[in-house]
This record gives sequence, structure tokens and C-alpha cells, in this order.
Amino acid sequence: MKTKSYFPKIGTIAYEGPRGENPLAFKHYNPEEIIDGRSMSEHLRFSIAYWHAFRGAGVDMFGAGSINRPWEKGKDPVSVAKMRMDAAFEFFQKIRAPFWCYHDRDIAPEGSTLAQTNKNLDALVAHAAQLQKATGIRLLWGTANLFGNPRYMCGGATNPDAHVFAYAAAQVKKAMDTTLALGGENYVFWGGREGYETLLNTNLKREQDHLAAFMHMAVDYAKQIGFTGQFLIEPKPKEPTKHQYDFDVASGIAFLRTYKLDKYFKFNIETNHATLAGHTFEHEIEVAASAGMLGSIDANTGDTLLGWDTDQFSTDVHGLTLAMISILRAGGLGKGGLNFDAKLRRPSIDIKDLFYAHIGGMDAYALAFKIARKILADGKLCQFVADRYASYDSGYGKDIEKRKIGFVELEKLVLTKLGEPKPRSGRQEYLENLIMQYVTNGA
Amino acid sequence: MKTKSYFPKIGTIAYEGPRGENPLAFKHYNPEEIIDGRSMSEHLRFSIAYWHAFRGAGVDMFGAGSINRPWEKGKDPVSVAKMRMDAAFEFFQKIRAPFWCYHDRDIAPEGSTLAQTNKNLDALVAHAAQLQKATGIRLLWGTANLFGNPRYMCGGATNPDAHVFAYAAAQVKKAMDTTLALGGENYVFWGGREGYETLLNTNLKREQDHLAAFMHMAVDYAKQIGFTGQFLIEPKPKEPTKHQYDFDVASGIAFLRTYKLDKYFKFNIETNHATLAGHTFEHEIEVAASAGMLGSIDANTGDTLLGWDTDQFSTDVHGLTLAMISILRAGGLGKGGLNFDAKLRRPSIDIKDLFYAHIGGMDAYALAFKIARKILADGKLCQFVADRYASYDSGYGKDIEKRKIGFVELEKLVLTKLGEPKPRSGRQEYLENLIMQYVTNGA
Amino acid sequence: MKTKSYFPKIGTIAYEGPRGENPLAFKHYNPEEIIDGRSMSEHLRFSIAYWHAFRGAGVDMFGAGSINRPWEKGKDPVSVAKMRMDAAFEFFQKIRAPFWCYHDRDIAPEGSTLAQTNKNLDALVAHAAQLQKATGIRLLWGTANLFGNPRYMCGGATNPDAHVFAYAAAQVKKAMDTTLALGGENYVFWGGREGYETLLNTNLKREQDHLAAFMHMAVDYAKQIGFTGQFLIEPKPKEPTKHQYDFDVASGIAFLRTYKLDKYFKFNIETNHATLAGHTFEHEIEVAASAGMLGSIDANTGDTLLGWDTDQFSTDVHGLTLAMISILRAGGLGKGGLNFDAKLRRPSIDIKDLFYAHIGGMDAYALAFKIARKILADGKLCQFVADRYASYDSGYGKDIEKRKIGFVELEKLVLTKLGEPKPRSGRQEYLENLIMQYVTNGA
Amino acid sequence: MKTKSYFPKIGTIAYEGPRGENPLAFKHYNPEEIIDGRSMSEHLRFSIAYWHAFRGAGVDMFGAGSINRPWEKGKDPVSVAKMRMDAAFEFFQKIRAPFWCYHDRDIAPEGSTLAQTNKNLDALVAHAAQLQKATGIRLLWGTANLFGNPRYMCGGATNPDAHVFAYAAAQVKKAMDTTLALGGENYVFWGGREGYETLLNTNLKREQDHLAAFMHMAVDYAKQIGFTGQFLIEPKPKEPTKHQYDFDVASGIAFLRTYKLDKYFKFNIETNHATLAGHTFEHEIEVAASAGMLGSIDANTGDTLLGWDTDQFSTDVHGLTLAMISILRAGGLGKGGLNFDAKLRRPSIDIKDLFYAHIGGMDAYALAFKIARKILADGKLCQFVADRYASYDSGYGKDIEKRKIGFVELEKLVLTKLGEPKPRSGRQEYLENLIMQYVTNGA
Repeated sequence: MKTKSYFPKIGTIAYEGPRGENPLAFKHYNPEEIIDGRSMSEHLRFSIAYWHAFRGAGVDMFGAGSINRPWEKGKDPVSVAKMRMDAAFEFFQKIRAPFWCYHDRDIAPEGSTLAQTNKNLDALVAHAAQLQKATGIRLLWGTANLFGNPRYMCGGATNPDAHVFAYAAAQVKKAMDTTLALGGENYVFWGGREGYETLLNTNLKREQDHLAAFMHMAVDYAKQIGFTGQFLIEPKPKEPTKHQYDFDVASGIAFLRTYKLDKYFKFNIETNHATLAGHTFEHEIEVAASAGMLGSIDANTGDTLLGWDTDQFSTDVHGLTLAMISILRAGGLGKGGLNFDAKLRRPSIDIKDLFYAHIGGMDAYALAFKIARKILADGKLCQFVADRYASYDSGYGKDIEKRKIGFVELEKLVLTKLGEPKPRSGRQEYLENLIMQYVTNGA
Repeated sequence: MKTKSYFPKIGTIAYEGPRGENPLAFKHYNPEEIIDGRSMSEHLRFSIAYWHAFRGAGVDMFGAGSINRPWEKGKDPVSVAKMRMDAAFEFFQKIRAPFWCYHDRDIAPEGSTLAQTNKNLDALVAHAAQLQKATGIRLLWGTANLFGNPRYMCGGATNPDAHVFAYAAAQVKKAMDTTLALGGENYVFWGGREGYETLLNTNLKREQDHLAAFMHMAVDYAKQIGFTGQFLIEPKPKEPTKHQYDFDVASGIAFLRTYKLDKYFKFNIETNHATLAGHTFEHEIEVAASAGMLGSIDANTGDTLLGWDTDQFSTDVHGLTLAMISILRAGGLGKGGLNFDAKLRRPSIDIKDLFYAHIGGMDAYALAFKIARKILADGKLCQFVADRYASYDSGYGKDIEKRKIGFVELEKLVLTKLGEPKPRSGRQEYLENLIMQYVTNGA
Repeated sequence: MKTKSYFPKIGTIAYEGPRGENPLAFKHYNPEEIIDGRSMSEHLRFSIAYWHAFRGAGVDMFGAGSINRPWEKGKDPVSVAKMRMDAAFEFFQKIRAPFWCYHDRDIAPEGSTLAQTNKNLDALVAHAAQLQKATGIRLLWGTANLFGNPRYMCGGATNPDAHVFAYAAAQVKKAMDTTLALGGENYVFWGGREGYETLLNTNLKREQDHLAAFMHMAVDYAKQIGFTGQFLIEPKPKEPTKHQYDFDVASGIAFLRTYKLDKYFKFNIETNHATLAGHTFEHEIEVAASAGMLGSIDANTGDTLLGWDTDQFSTDVHGLTLAMISILRAGGLGKGGLNFDAKLRRPSIDIKDLFYAHIGGMDAYALAFKIARKILADGKLCQFVADRYASYDSGYGKDIEKRKIGFVELEKLVLTKLGEPKPRSGRQEYLENLIMQYVTNGA
Repeated sequence: MKTKSYFPKIGTIAYEGPRGENPLAFKHYNPEEIIDGRSMSEHLRFSIAYWHAFRGAGVDMFGAGSINRPWEKGKDPVSVAKMRMDAAFEFFQKIRAPFWCYHDRDIAPEGSTLAQTNKNLDALVAHAAQLQKATGIRLLWGTANLFGNPRYMCGGATNPDAHVFAYAAAQVKKAMDTTLALGGENYVFWGGREGYETLLNTNLKREQDHLAAFMHMAVDYAKQIGFTGQFLIEPKPKEPTKHQYDFDVASGIAFLRTYKLDKYFKFNIETNHATLAGHTFEHEIEVAASAGMLGSIDANTGDTLLGWDTDQFSTDVHGLTLAMISILRAGGLGKGGLNFDAKLRRPSIDIKDLFYAHIGGMDAYALAFKIARKILADGKLCQFVADRYASYDSGYGKDIEKRKIGFVELEKLVLTKLGEPKPRSGRQEYLENLIMQYVTNGA
């Protein structure tokens, strides 16, 4: 489809430093390596986030874009969008990621009317379909951007103006159509403006009712068009709004159960969103998993000393190992994957930096995956935890779990037989050492 | 019942400062003042927290108690406990609070066995019953302390050891008995250790299952003994544990709905717990109210620049007005009340400080209540909010709320009739000014 | 100079709400009111921040500008800049602010070369000089924007590339020239990129040396051109960079004293920057004042539950009263003033909102000023504090302050005469009540 | 001196888990291993913190002590203190730490008068001297506890009461005497109460003046008694006080330079205190090092999602490697060392846990030290940084550093020769990958 190449082959760019070590090569990620009968790329299902990798320009609240790409020029916005997409798919291949993700507005420019916007989108979706076919790259998920355009400044589905709700409905309908057309395995809702700036002008209950109505419409429409992908909610506590309704996984569960939507949705958990909500990444994974709602991962990291979404690539193998333990223990991600919702730092302006960043992120996850598998295979950690709860496996402990016993019986037991419990150490430091040993021993 | 008085009458202690203004007098709180047919004391239902007011000694993690009270001496722990309770009820009267609250272990010392502990508790409950009768002070709520004794170091209902679960069950059973005996209008669960220190040694799902089993036992037992008070969950995100399961109101709702406990519980919302969870106080009130689960308030404030529960008395009338607007808009607190879960700063060692603190806290709430009433009576704020959502009151907006319309119809509407929405200002600064004007104009 | 008017007169726009109260009028700020022989406008020295009020468009990291102004159109960037400046000075007058502030790049567009950029700037400075003369509005301070253009992505004076340092020097030279030309009373350094993103690529010591060299150059150049305005450093801990060298006032003092710059600089303290650094606003004022370095105020507020610079208008009279106490106690701001470095919320898109916002901010400060004056005039608070330290006014206490006594003498005193100290209450709750009473009683 | 042994020999306790791996053995720390002509124990200078290891009982703000030790019984407090110290020195040996640290009140109980307290202290210091001699364990530093006793509730040196100042002076005098007697290599000031709870009752300037007077007295007294150890300030931002004057290293530098104390003090940097102040650990190390004031380390970690001092043992080799790079690049710690100011989690109640914790902490530091040495030896990282600043090594860059050039010359350079700078990537992701590779490759 295209002749121009924008990227080097991995392994061919010499590092500019004094000693020649080449960081443009994977150390731990080998997509073809077979583990337990599946390739590593199918275990990890890495995905590239179109918005950061191909629409990010290093902008921040205090400065204009620092990153200029050679493909960002052309005779009209749609042509540029196509060249950009060519570059993107070349990158997906060279970085050896099996999946990609997008918002509708990432891939195609808005027109002056919704009809024109949809037309632009159709053109790019057709282009993407060709590129997917040519490269074998698949769509992990699609989504609609209901936060960038000023029309959504007070929300999409939670907008106080029903007109905006209607517009958002039309936009999500189209985004679902395009996700279906491209074979997307999931569809994501991140409600960056579905919240409030101030309670003074807000009817919180009514806004949540509207959000629920919107979600039910999406469920109905999926049935109508035969979209069988998984719906995912992506929680984030705040930013851009003061408060977002899907604050964390628990608040998402509260919402879904309240409005009887729980059987249709799982969660797309982002590391940086977890920490902004005051939780560890692995906490959010465990909460989702315990509800059978672990869907997919937005793989990045934040800086816990900063209060905004920094969307950095993680190279913290220790931390990722804890997350991979929880993911594997939950049975993996199913239709989900590991999507690098992470961006280059503003001064990382070269194409090489795009490779360094993703290679680091992929290698870190690959190594963490291998270490976590080893930990689970060894069984020591899981056995420790199982032993700790063993008293619930029989006797009155089992009766508690089965709800066959009540306060009266338990009081009698304590007063007449059990007496004072004997404390047992939680062994946190031992377990932390154990993890450190696994991590520093490698895979 | 007792002859000794520990406290001055309000209004009789001269302030030690240079000009004689006497802060030992209420400016805004007058329990007898009738508003809308009810006395102010019944509107506000102030309650004194036994633990802070009568068990707090100014201890912190870096220092021993600084506060010494004259009643803290006696021939044995139970006698001291009675004298302390005499002092407490004298204080409740002098400070003109209609309610009090306690944990079981606040009022009576633990003995060497549970049977002995229960006996001590019975003695003090009988004493309290007499004092309640003599003074007319009522019990807002009782609760059990499942966090102080080392046996609960890994939780009560979520302890990995079923023996501790049984012990906790016996303790809560007794605490419910005593709450019933004293006519408590609510029973509170604050699960300070119902969470985890590290996920490494934790089965999160199993712990939550156990917590749910425990709550169901409490519901069953209440029916058994005819306790018709309201059950309340008090969320707090962290401290003492790394993570507490009842992180905030939303996570509490998720838990209650998941385990089919939602019709038996409401929430006791603490200001400082709200901000530790990253929410405003009024946010938590609104979330609970929108689920019909607003129960009671632990009235204090934190310091949002500090990361722990400072449990301070609030004198921020502006902030409390926002909370009172949300409370009044939700129809008030019903069986709940405003419990001063707040403690003296460590250097505030005099009895006078106990008065200053509560007078300030009560006056601040009383004034905020009056201002909030005025704001709601004026109607300007509510009308503004109602107008903002008016597009959902008719036409396709109403159809959205009624769920009579879907994506297909809405898309058609947008493409053929509605076009691009016209943005409307959210008027945040105007509304903030309006509130400032009400607050600075007073009641 | 111009004929077109963009703004209504204050008091003439009817509020759109149901009951007609008009928030477009000051309740507390009256620039002509004489207090202690000076007009209120000279006491408070309010200033409008050009960047927020006239360059802010409601952009955030997740969305494009929502605010469109009628004056933002024209045949070329310099013409637009002039029309915008006409609108700005009309607003300054109507809002009755005696001062304004700007960054060089706010008022004039960058050209293709520095020479062209300077030429554009000259044109707008000439225009501003005329408008200042015509209106009587004065310049509180000027500054240079060393953070917006990608050339500064790794800092200006702390850039690892000396070329960028040189460019920054040229830019600040010009900004000082224009500040002098417009009679600016201060010149501000906010080093938003003078810090680092990662220590991995940073020589912290060398960057601080360069920053000091830059500051010395500025001091020298001021002498050269006869600029006698006050130099101000504006601390901020982070954002946009991971870490900014002028983290807070204390780190600014450390820097200034280390590099012998302390006699040339004071501080411009921003409320929101204080809280982002983990301090209260009044703390930063007190720290600066105790070093004789309190310069000026960037009057806004943050949201302590959000981790980024929200730059909101404050209507919290209680909080501002605490700040005004500290400012007045320090003898006021001298050449400094109260600059509204605050922006409209993204959905506040109307011109009316610009008025609401500034009227609220100015009224809140005006009322806080009046209350703080009353508190200081009453003397009760100051006397309390003076009494608390009275033991240092004579005897061995005085000897300690005079450094006439050492450990040996003090040990002897304690062992032979003084014995154990008697604790005295810090009376925090009493003092908090006192402040509440002043604040709720009004001015 | 004693016959009873409380501890197992490392390597002899079988782990209770299912597979027998023994975490009671070092994997990376070998005190005798010679590196660059010095033993590993002299490179790392590990120290045990008496307070946590031997006075910590698992207390927190919500619960009583969970940890009971066999040596905590005896006929009187001084006898118990001696038995405890015997146990401590046995532990120091078995854990192979060459140093220990203490506060005066950790090792000996307070008496009813200062004279009696000093007598108790003398007894224990004599005991410690014998144990030091017998074991070869050395004292890294001593300090005085000016925060635990209620007399210090409003500070020691910054107390508003000169009587308390005098008492604190007497106490520190004695603590310096005992530190000298035991050959302490440093003396530490941590001013946990040297700050304020509320500015309302505080004269910040006067308190800082008093603190400076106190520090000058300490300097004078050291000269008097011939104490040549290094004075260290340990910054912490808050907790127990609302605000502590030594908030971070930068504020410590500001204080020391303001009061001309800078040549007598260095900093004892604690990891958890760094993060509570909003800084990374390595940031604080770099700031101290850049001022020539890097003294010693309190080796622990916090939980950045919690807002209080958790004082945990770190097993994060990745993070510690970054700190060790900064320490080694600064030339090491000199008289300082790595003191484990870390405590067992409350449920870690067994003696084994004390071993697990310290072995993990020591191993993590030992491995980080080895990796950091390798990184510095390889030179790639340092060369990258040096290259980045190369433009300041010659030409006008060098003139900037030498301060031979000013704004006028630099402007001319830019306008006539240099033009627009060419941005260069900061390569953050590359450098992060590089570190990850070193860390995962091990030592």
C-alpha cells in the first residue's frame, strides 16, 4: 500500500552513547516464543495506543508540542490521516505488537457536521481495514472520544443538555459500528467528562441515571448489530473533571449493580488511574477479578509524587510482577490485552525514543510475566495464603462460609470452648523478601 | 447520683485574654429555638463521641498522653470507668448535646476473659442507663471496637483465622445487646482493620465473603432481638490498614449490593474520612443520598495537607454550609445525627479546651444549618440546577430518561434535526459568589 | 483610541436566574473607600493576569478551547493582539483593577526570528503604554515566558544546552526592557521548566549554578538600565516539570543565600503553588516575611483534593482572612500587589463569567482585608501570641535570645532551680473559634 | 556478660512454608567480602535502630502493642533495660550489622527527676560501653528524644516556654556526653516537634531564632567537650506536627545558611521523610550532595499512597539502585551509614520476622550497591550526562559558568550568530531502559 518507510528496523540503529550497547532490541519479549502451548504475543496481547504514539506531540498545559513527525504533512486532513496511519501500522509491525487501539477522533479529523465527520471516519476505517489485513495486526478495542470537543465540556452522557446526550449517542453508535467493522475484541468507555466540576450546578443522581440509560442503549445496540465484543469501563478518579463517576473499580461496580448493567461490563484498568485513586495497580486488578470483571489493562505508570496522569512507560519489573501475579491468578485477561496507554516525555522528541519507550515497556512486562509464572508454578506464595485461611475449610469456619451459623452459636463457642485466639504473624517481610528474590533471580 | 462536679457552667469562666470576650458561650446554637416546628436540637441531633471526649489523652505516634483529667483515678478500673461516665454525662448536659455515642471498650475495661469483659460492660451499661434517665441524654449509636486489641491485628470479620471471626461475632452480639438496652437509634460498623496490610498474604475475595457473612449474621440477630435501629457502615479508605474494604461510600454500595445487604444498611459519613478518600464531604453525602442511604454524620474535619485522620473540630462555616445544603436537600438525617468524632489537639490540655472545641463545632454547624436553610428557602440555587436539566423534562430528553429511545433514533435526530449543540456556561464562579454572599451575610 | 466596547458596565447586566439578584456588583470592594488614609485600591493593589483573563480559552489536557471572544479575529496576529489589548484595558477599567501583569508572549505573538518577535513586542508595548496613559492602569509586574516554546522544553537558564541559555538571556533582557518601559513595579521569575524531568539525565548542581549565573546577570542588567523595580521569585514545586528548583519559599531562600542573591530578591507567593508544595498559603507568607522577603501575591486557590494547578478564584473569606492577617502583620506587600492568577473553569464560557469570577475574587479579598484589620486592631490574637512567648522577654529566656548562655548554664538551672516545666495549653480550638467569630461577624 | 540467648543463628531456622527455602540467610550481603580494598560492611555501614528493633511493639494510633518479647520482663525498669540491651547486642551480632543508633530515652527509662533520669542513662551507657567492647559493634549516632514526653508537646528548642528550652538544652547536653562516651561518629537532630500545630498561636520567626540559638549552643558545647563527630539534621515535613521547620533538605539549607550554621551540619536523609515531603529519595540525596552536606541515611521506605511515616523495610532494588548511584557519585557517606529506621508491620510479631525484615533490607541495599557500582564503572550513564552539558565546557558556555558574560553580550550572540536553538532529546525512556537492564541483570 505504501512505499515510504519512516522507521528503522529494530536492531539497526546504533546508540549514540560512548559504548555502543544497542537498546533497540528486545531482551525479554519474543513474540514467537511458545509458553504453555501459546505464543508469548498471545499471552501478553500487547497493543499500541494510537492517541499517544501517533497523535501525541509532547504538549502539556504550559507548552506547545515539541514533537514533529515527518508524516504529519499533506494536502488535506484526510490525506495526512492516511499517511499517519501508514506510519502507525509500520510501527506496529516493527515493534511486533499484535494489537492496536483507537478513539474515533484519533484516526480521522472532525468535519463541519456530524455527517461529514462520519464520512471522514469511514474513509480511515476502510484504510485501517486494508492495513489490518495486510499486516495481521488486530484491533484490541475501539472507543469514542467524548471529551475533547468543547461540546462535551459538561459531559457526554451526563451532560445537562439532552441535545449533547443525543449527539454523544450518535457518536458512540458510529464508534461501535467501526469497532465491529474492524473486528475489535472489546469496546471501551472512558468517561473523562462524565462527572462534575462543582456540585453547585450538578444533579448527581440525575446524571448517573442518564449515564445508565446511555449504557443500556449501548448494550441494546450491540445486540442489534451483532457486536459480541466485551464492553469495558475504564475507571479514573479525576482529571479532567474534578470528580469522575467511574472513580475506581469499586465505584464502577456500585454503578453497574445499581443499574443492573453488571453482566454486560468488565473493567479496563489503567495503572496510573489506579494510583490517582489512591489504590495500587494490583488492588484494582484484584477487586475486578473478585467480581469476575477483570477485562483489560492500560499498561503505563504514574508518578505517585505527582498528582496528574503522567502516562509513563513502566520499567519497574518488581511492581509489574505483583500485577502479573494477580492477573495470572485471575485466569488471565481473556479478550483483553496490555495496551500501552503511555506517552513519550515532552523532551523525547526523536523517533528512536518511540522505540526505546515501547521496547522498555514490553520487555518489562514480558519479564514480569515470566517471573510471575515462575512464582505461581513454584506454589510457595499461593500455599502460604491458602494455609493462612485454612481454618475456614472445616468445622465452624466452614459453617461461617456456608452461613450455617450465627452470632448466638459463635458466642457460645467462644465462651465455652474457644477462648482467646492466638495471634499468628502475617509474615509480610518474609513474603516481600521472597518476591525480591524471585525478581532479582530473573526468569 | 453523684455530688462532685467537674465542669464549669458555660458562660462562667472568664477568658484569660486581655479583653474579656467569653468564648464559653454559644453564638448560634440554641437548643430550644424552634425552627419549622422542631427545636434546633432535634434538627441537628448533636452527639458527643465518648472515645475522643473522654478516652482521648492527646497521645500520638510520637508521644505519650498530655491530657490528665481529675476523674481518671480510683480504686479499680470499673470504678474509674463509672466516675468517668459521671463526668461525661455532666459534660453532655452542660454542653447541651442531646445525644452521645460509644464503642463497647470506651465505656468499660476489658477483663481477662470475654465473660469478665461482658460483666464489666454490663455494669457500665446499667450505669449509663441510669444517667440517661436522669439527664434525658439519648444514645445516637453504639458500636464495637474490633481494632484496638491485638487479637484483631489482621481484622475482625475479615481475619484469616475463623477463631477471631467467632470472637468478633461474640463481641458484636454483645454490643448490639447493649445498644438495644440503651435505646440506641443506630448501630455502626467501622471496619478499621477490615482490610489488608499487603495483598501478598491476602485472599481479598474470601475476606469480603466473610465480611458479608458477618453482616448477614448481624441483620439476623437484630431481627432475633427486636433491634429496629438503623445499621450504618462508616467508610474510611485507609489507616490503620493499608487498605480498608469500605474505602468510601461508593465501595460500600458495591459491597452491599454484591452481597444483597443493601436494604439493611445506610452510611455514617465522616468528613475526614471523605477527604482521605479523595472526595469532598458533600460528595460522599450526595452519593449516599442518591442511593437512599444517607444515615448519619461523624462531624469533624481533616487537614487536606496532612495524610492521616486528624479528627479536628471544624469552624469552617463556608464548607459546612455546602454539606448542610446536601443534607437538607436529601431530607435530613432521619434517625442519624451529627456526632462530634473530633479530638482536642495534643497541646489543648485543659477542660476549658474541651468546651471551646465543642462550642465552636456546634456553633459552626448551627450557623451552617441556618444559612443552608435560607439558601434552599430562597430557591435560587435549586432553580438554577433544575433549569440546567430542563431539556430532560420533555420531548426526546424525557424519552431518554424513560428509556423509550435508543442510539438509532438519537442518531437520526442529530443528523436530521438537531445538528450541533450550543454550549451553555456552567456558571461555577457565579454560583460560588452566590454562596459566598449567603455565607458572609449570615443567618 | 478605540470605539468598540466589548463589555457591559458593572451593574447593568441582569442575572438570568429566577429572582433577579445581581451578582455583577461589588459588595465589599470599593476602590475609592479611604481606610487609614489610603484608598482601598492602594491597600489591595489588585491586578489582572493577562494570560488567564485574555489568553485563556478553557483548554485542558483533554480538550480544546471552549471560550471564544469577539475580539479574537483580525487580519494578522499583531492586529489581533492590539484589539485583544484594547478589550483587556476596557475590562481592567470596568472591573476597577488598578494594575495588570503580563508575560512577554501573552501580549505579542512570536515571529519567525527573535528580531521579528522583538519587533512585534515593541509594537504592543507601545500600544500598552498608550492604554496605560489613557486609563491610569499601571503595570504591577512583567515577566518572560521561558516555558511555552519547545525550545525551552528542558529549561531556560537551566537548559543543558548553553545555546538555549543564551536565548533565554536575550529574551529576559528584552522583557526587562519592556517592563521598565511600562513602569513595572516588579519583575517576576517563575521557572516552570527550571527543574528536571528525571535525575537520570540531570546534573543538578550544574543546573543550579547556571540558574544563579542567570540571576546575577539579571541583577547586573537591572543596574545597567536603571530598573529599580523589585525582583521576585515565584516558587512552585512541580508541574510542568517533575521537580522545579524553586519548590517553595524555603528552597528559594536556600538558593538565594547559597548564591549570594538574597538581597536582590523577594517572593511572589501563589496560593495554589503553596498547597501543591504541601504548605498552607499563610505558611509561605510567614516564611517569606520572616526573612524580609515577602514581595507579592498571586491570588488564586487550588483544590487540595486535586494534584495540579487549578488556578481557581477564591471565595473562601475564612481562609483569605488568615492570609491577610499574615500579610498585614508583615507590614503589607509594599511594591507588590494581589494579582488574580486565576482562570475561568472550562465551562464558564461567557463574558459575564469573567466578571463574576473577578468580582467574587476581589470581594473575597476585600472582605478578608477588612476582617483581618479588625482582628489586628482588636489586638486579642496578637496579645495571645505575645503572652505565649513572654518567658523569652526577660531572665534566662532573654539570655537565650541574646545567646549569652549555653548548655552548661541551662543544665545547671534545670537541675538546681527550675525542675520540670509546667505544660500550658496551646488553645488552638479557642483561637479557631475566635477567628470564626470575627469572620462570621463580618467587617 | 550474659548467658541467655534469645535468637537463633542465621541459617538455622527452617522456614515454616511447604518447600523449605530458608529466607534466614543473606543472598547478597557478605560483610567480609572485599570490594575496592574495603569490606562490604565498611562500604555500607549498616546500623540497627534501637527504637524500632527493640522498643517497637506494633502499636499504632488505633491499637495496642501486638509484639511481646521474652526479655521484656524484670524486677525494675533499669534491669529490664539492661536485659533488653543484651538481647539487642546479640541481635546486632547475629544480623552482622557493624553499627547501632539510639535516642537517649530508648535505652534508659526516665526517672522522676532529670537527675534520676540521667543516673538511669549513665547505668545503661556503661552497659552499652561494655557490650560495644565485647562485640565490636560501634555507635553510628546518638540523639535525644525531644518529642515523646508531654513536656515537649509544643516543641523543645522551639517551645514558647523558655523553661522547656532550658530542659531540652540540659537533655541534649547529656545526650552529647553519652554519644561522646560511646564513640558515636555522628550526632543527629530530628525535630519532630520543632514546628507548629497552628500558625494562630505561633511566632514563626522567633521560634526559628530560638532553634538557631539552640544549635549554636550545641556547636559550642561540642567544642567544649571535644566531640568531633558530625552534626546531622534529619528533615521531615510533618508528623507529628502539622509543619516541621526542617521540612526537607532545602529548607534545612535555608535555615543553616540564614543562621550561619552551615559549616557545622550535614543531613541525615530518610527515605520515607523524602517522599512525605513530595520528593524522591534520590532528590534529597542530590540536593544535600550538591551543597556538600550529604551525611547519613535512614534506610527505610514509605508507601507513597499513604500519608504517614510507615517506616517499612525496602526490598525495591530498582529504587535503591537510583539512590546508591547518587550516593556513590557524591563520594559516599563518609562518617555516615545506612541506618535501618524501619519497623515490623504490626502483625509481624515473631522474632523470626525481625530477621526476615533486616535480612531483606540489607540484601536489597547490598545488591543495589553492587549494581550501582557497576553502572558507574561502566560509565555509560555518567558519560551521557556529561555529554549533555558539554556546551558549557568551552566558548560562551564556559563564559556563562565563569560569569564573564552578561545579557547584552548573549543577546548580541543570539541575534547575530546563534539564531534558534536546535532541540535535543532528553532520552528519558532510553535511560530508564538502561537502568532496568542493569537491575535485571543483577550484580
